[in-house]
Amino acid sequence: MFQKPIGLLTPKPIGESWIKAFQKEAPEVTVLLNEALTDPSEVELLLVWKHPKSSLQRFNNLQLLYSLGAGVDHLMSDPDIPKDVPICRIVDPLLAFSMSNYIVYAVLDFQRRMDKYRQDQQQKIWDHYAAPERSIRIGVLGLGTLGQDAALKLKGLGFDVAGYSPSPKNIPEITCHHGDQLSAFLQSVNVLICTVPYTSKTHALLNASLFQQLPKGSYLINVARGKVQVEKDLLEALETHQLSGAFLDVFETEPLPKDSPLWHHPKVQITPHIASITKPEAGVRQIVANWERIQNNAPLEHQVNLQKGY
Amino acid sequence: MFQKPIGLLTPKPIGESWIKAFQKEAPEVTVLLNEALTDPSEVELLLVWKHPKSSLQRFNNLQLLYSLGAGVDHLMSDPDIPKDVPICRIVDPLLAFSMSNYIVYAVLDFQRRMDKYRQDQQQKIWDHYAAPERSIRIGVLGLGTLGQDAALKLKGLGFDVAGYSPSPKNIPEITCHHGDQLSAFLQSVNVLICTVPYTSKTHALLNASLFQQLPKGSYLINVARGKVQVEKDLLEALETHQLSGAFLDVFETEPLPKDSPLWHHPKVQITPHIASITKPEAGVRQIVANWERIQNNAPLEHQVNLQKGY
Repeated sequence: MFQKPIGLLTPKPIGESWIKAFQKEAPEVTVLLNEALTDPSEVELLLVWKHPKSSLQRFNNLQLLYSLGAGVDHLMSDPDIPKDVPICRIVDPLLAFSMSNYIVYAVLDFQRRMDKYRQDQQQKIWDHYAAPERSIRIGVLGLGTLGQDAALKLKGLGFDVAGYSPSPKNIPEITCHHGDQLSAFLQSVNVLICTVPYTSKTHALLNASLFQQLPKGSYLINVARGKVQVEKDLLEALETHQLSGAFLDVFETEPLPKDSPLWHHPKVQITPHIASITKPEAGVRQIVANWERIQNNAPLEHQVNLQKGY
Repeated sequence: MFQKPIGLLTPKPIGESWIKAFQKEAPEVTVLLNEALTDPSEVELLLVWKHPKSSLQRFNNLQLLYSLGAGVDHLMSDPDIPKDVPICRIVDPLLAFSMSNYIVYAVLDFQRRMDKYRQDQQQKIWDHYAAPERSIRIGVLGLGTLGQDAALKLKGLGFDVAGYSPSPKNIPEITCHHGDQLSAFLQSVNVLICTVPYTSKTHALLNASLFQQLPKGSYLINVARGKVQVEKDLLEALETHQLSGAFLDVFETEPLPKDSPLWHHPKVQITPHIASITKPEAGVRQIVANWERIQNNAPLEHQVNLQKGY
């Protein structure tokens, strides 16, 4: 099925995990990573994740371009993206497992005041009588596959959950807002979980004006993309107690620069963009199946809509 | 309905929250706390939680004795417990909400290596490539109301969950062990959640011999009672890496003594017995309803079985 080598453009540690997965799931294929790609014109299937700028032009015989994750913003921002080649993305069922677990953890960390108990432990304080739980109303901003999964799992734990998406959604037991109801949605929640895709419309969406529409003392969880948040505004909202804290997996610049005040902010918890990482094994099976479809002129799965940007 | 005052024996901060709840839910009742109980013989309904030793004998006209929580070990250990008075316990539906959320948090803290990310944050380390998730198989020891609720919620998040209880249970999608299958159960899991009631049979159950039956590097979560665990054995199992960590809400002696090595153990997280605290509002409604039943000679709800001890 694969006469030509598959091309792989991605940072080395990620590339190596994909090569390992191909060796396991599709050992007959040759996969060439980065500088091993000496003859780009022989590559018909190219897999990319955070590829270097201006690295796509050389591939002039592509039949299929693949994003090795659910997000495609790293591709959309590249002016050299080939216009006539279909682009697909990995939709890993385990992505939702990991993402929702991360979100649930972040919600519970706030709701159960776990930062207080960690501090108390360091000081050997046994405070049995402080209220151990906050009363929260959860809002999920972005009701795609991942946002919906998190909303339903939080509902399953017994929380009140509302959601917002540009177009109407109907999810059992979740209060769904859409279109011009963003402000009403924001006013109704005090824990905001951001799971939107990164597009021109969501760029800098989490800014001072949005924070102002949340009740004072709300909590922010961002697992989407760093450029959705305006960190200067976030820091100011923490300063004025408009936000009481934030749990962030993504940042305007990644890795987060050493001089960012977010690192040691007492109300901010940071993880290095690990909320949900695509597992290569499941991804390889999807890539192989889509490559078969292309050979058979069958419709592709998880193809990216270039207009919508996701 | 209440001609006589209700008696309340419990530490003052707890007592005050119950008095407040009675004022809200049943304002017609007089509730007398601790030293305000100057005439014990007029008390027909007595509510207790961690009452002082030898404080029960004086109440010689009791019709109903109530534990202000799901556990009754604090009553069972009192030799002065009246033998011919029915004892009930609060079964707060919100208890399961809080308990399961605490358990889910503790599981995810281990599974997602959150201690690593907290340490990395302190040192401004951005480690995107370390595997952010552990592969876990969860075991719930004790499949009462609370254990079952946690098992089902963890299953709902996508985890493999097994359980053990003395008598057979049938819970959808949970692998249920019982009777003499304890060892097989322990060998099959690497995260052990203890939710057993405290009885003579569960005293010191979490000891060196039990830890040895878990796979090396297992994780322990105890939300049951402190006297179920042998802390000396626990510390040794951590030392030898038989256990890779523990998340503990309960301790052999509470408050945990300042000289306990658990306080600053790098692999142990401690909370001050706050995993699930009975909400007085729901409790007052249950107490009032059971008092009505006693007046009407109707069967009581949530009555304690003195033989079983819970």
